[in-house]
Amino acid sequence: MDLLTLLGSILPRDGVLTGTDMAGYVQDWWGRQQGQALCIALPRDTAEVSAIVSACAAAGHGVIPQGGNTGLTGAASPASTAGDRLPVIVSLARMRRIRDIDVANFTISVDAGCILADVHAAAEAHQRLFPVSLGAEGSCQIGGIVSTNAGGTNVLRYGSTRENVLGLEVVLPDGTVWNGMKGLRKDNTGYDLRQLFIGAEGTLGIVTGAVLKLHPLSRVHATAWLALDSPASALAVLNRLRATCGERLTTFELLNAAQLAAVVACQPKLRVPVEAPWHLLVELADMTEAGSLEALLFDTVGEALSGGELLDAIPATSDSQRAAYWALRHGTAEANRSSGVVLSADISVPVASVPAFLENASNAVRNVFARATTMVVSHMGDGNIHFGTHFDTADWQAMRDPAATTLAVRRIVNDCADALGGSFSAEHGIGRKLTEELAKRADPAELLLMRRIKAAIDPAGIMNPGCLLS
Amino acid sequence: MDLLTLLGSILPRDGVLTGTDMAGYVQDWWGRQQGQALCIALPRDTAEVSAIVSACAAAGHGVIPQGGNTGLTGAASPASTAGDRLPVIVSLARMRRIRDIDVANFTISVDAGCILADVHAAAEAHQRLFPVSLGAEGSCQIGGIVSTNAGGTNVLRYGSTRENVLGLEVVLPDGTVWNGMKGLRKDNTGYDLRQLFIGAEGTLGIVTGAVLKLHPLSRVHATAWLALDSPASALAVLNRLRATCGERLTTFELLNAAQLAAVVACQPKLRVPVEAPWHLLVELADMTEAGSLEALLFDTVGEALSGGELLDAIPATSDSQRAAYWALRHGTAEANRSSGVVLSADISVPVASVPAFLENASNAVRNVFARATTMVVSHMGDGNIHFGTHFDTADWQAMRDPAATTLAVRRIVNDCADALGGSFSAEHGIGRKLTEELAKRADPAELLLMRRIKAAIDPAGIMNPGCLLS
Repeated sequence: MDLLTLLGSILPRDGVLTGTDMAGYVQDWWGRQQGQALCIALPRDTAEVSAIVSACAAAGHGVIPQGGNTGLTGAASPASTAGDRLPVIVSLARMRRIRDIDVANFTISVDAGCILADVHAAAEAHQRLFPVSLGAEGSCQIGGIVSTNAGGTNVLRYGSTRENVLGLEVVLPDGTVWNGMKGLRKDNTGYDLRQLFIGAEGTLGIVTGAVLKLHPLSRVHATAWLALDSPASALAVLNRLRATCGERLTTFELLNAAQLAAVVACQPKLRVPVEAPWHLLVELADMTEAGSLEALLFDTVGEALSGGELLDAIPATSDSQRAAYWALRHGTAEANRSSGVVLSADISVPVASVPAFLENASNAVRNVFARATTMVVSHMGDGNIHFGTHFDTADWQAMRDPAATTLAVRRIVNDCADALGGSFSAEHGIGRKLTEELAKRADPAELLLMRRIKAAIDPAGIMNPGCLLS
Repeated sequence: MDLLTLLGSILPRDGVLTGTDMAGYVQDWWGRQQGQALCIALPRDTAEVSAIVSACAAAGHGVIPQGGNTGLTGAASPASTAGDRLPVIVSLARMRRIRDIDVANFTISVDAGCILADVHAAAEAHQRLFPVSLGAEGSCQIGGIVSTNAGGTNVLRYGSTRENVLGLEVVLPDGTVWNGMKGLRKDNTGYDLRQLFIGAEGTLGIVTGAVLKLHPLSRVHATAWLALDSPASALAVLNRLRATCGERLTTFELLNAAQLAAVVACQPKLRVPVEAPWHLLVELADMTEAGSLEALLFDTVGEALSGGELLDAIPATSDSQRAAYWALRHGTAEANRSSGVVLSADISVPVASVPAFLENASNAVRNVFARATTMVVSHMGDGNIHFGTHFDTADWQAMRDPAATTLAVRRIVNDCADALGGSFSAEHGIGRKLTEELAKRADPAELLLMRRIKAAIDPAGIMNPGCLLS
């Protein structure tokens, strides 16, 4: 029996998509990578995932796990050329069950296909918080954020996805199911397999379920929009806020004027609260004491104003104002997709090196591409910078070799991160976009260990071929 | 050249210990495991560690990394029978350099041999906190807490060691040095090797350096001793405190009367503040607002008193009273080492199952060993219980087969944890003590993955043989 027929016998009629029905699945979020696949398989439970993977392994076809397909490095969508045995995309979209919520244990157990925003809502109904939050939360899935080790806007306080997963269920490359769905805060019984699958981008198995760590839900927020003359001033403000507010500081996002202009061009209803070269969105959150939380923020911001670190500060005085500030921040991804061509790097450096990186990288790009604009949106509290190099459409279309430009910009920016002890992929992962960068920049001992681990767990190379390790 | 001669050529004269000079290194903390080793090697830097490991690998001798030798499962000390090629113990005690502290980045880079308490002090000098805290902090080393993934009394708020390590330097089983000393909060460039070495108990390599995550230092504490009639009441109090205080709740430690009696018997200067069957030590910490932090604790405790969950509550009104409360808590390990024989299990269960576990396990042990006493000290906020079964010395000496009793108690207690979805080793690891339990209780898919990873990274089985995987 050929693989397609076999998959048809495992899944219901509408559980296998081929031909033009695959359109929404074979293209990445950017719309730049149009791939080839044998079919899309839509399992309803872990047993079906296991049967699909077993069938693919037996037939020697690759398996590409796919969540909400909102990743930014092409990890969940196939390459455009894939040889004679096309991969099967396994979409977790039909596995959306919230299995259990244990309020006293501060845990929630979910299928991998659950939408992140649905998990937020389920937790909040019990006065609990699942803290991983990002622009795509309305469509990205838990299996995707686990496999990417997604970051987002709350990492400063709560850590990345990695710090917020207690247990996993994974279908291994031979179809075996590893049940690691423990909801324990401490468990030192051997190697931490969970952490190995987190961030592995589906190259070691398919995550089918997760036990997530919940936190007490903050009831009170204090939010402000701050205007600054430089990233160095932002660093001073960050140090002030951490010293006075500690863990209350949840959000510390830096944007430059060009980035905000692109957001407003894309969403004309939005307005930037004040003109300035640099902007910060800061937010505190706490369980209690509305008045004193605002006072804490105002006092600290007031000291920063007196100290000359800020040009202006505009607290959010209503929920709608707070939402408007966040809309500006969350509008960056869509703006960068639709505004000319933005070559986006996702780098990180030690926090104190953020100003140096921004200056070095902007200058280095400008020296080669004088007409490019730098767009910055940074989870500055984590040292994470989404450094966009923007070309307007006419300039891009006039370019002789766009692929060479893409690579050149990538190398220039990533070299600047390297020089400061940084990373060329802070939170978006490697996918199919950055395999060459990984091979070029990783410590050889590190690459060798990764290859040995891949070979030990997936000896036939079935899982997500071409992703992460090329 | 034989291995001992070769090691003598790598290290200075006093860097290789043999014969009776090995006494302090070949015995575990409990004094129960007296082992055999070829020698103790005392390298001064990473290059020496690399040379030692290369020499041992070439000669086919095992390597046992040792930190402060305060572990409780015998991971750092050799077995009593070790065949014809005795292992070399590599003590990191001479590698105690604090390499760098980056205040703005909230990171500290240290040699693996640094004492935990010295790292605390170095961080505090810059108004920073390294949160991993445990009874042995005056002698345990960073390499040890990393390799054990140590927990302790601050996990509820700050996580285990695993959540507080950003980078590692590791000497691999062939002597290669992997330099992963990055101080980045976000770095998604491939498999997270760091997390694989954390908690691997030295079976995949020797940790020689670490970059640790620091936090804002709390300046204000509010501490109370609470008396209760049952663990179920403690659970109600925990839920109350998390709801009102959120992340301010740093410590939530449950002890029973028998455990406290053993501490006081061992340290007669200490006094238990109040008589009751169950006791809690709770502590809040914050950056600011001394008055309101105490008020927050008092209000919440007051509601718990009114709600009938507490028998009594005694806030610490001075630093010395706070220190006295902590002395009771930190006295348990020493008390359990010197008071008759305490068979100690280190289990975890979902937090809401702590009362059920305590009842089930106490009854199950009492049914078989009627004269044994249950001693409980629990990081209850993490669902982690150190469940001690105490025999007085006369009873133990009269026992026909003490080894069989040890095993029987272990099995009874761990079965109770298993039945509640728990773990038989929450924070102490596997070591040489629990390899049989791991083989017996782990999911077969999980064990197979662990063995494949071990074989992929340490194909010759040089690193810490007999530890973790037997």
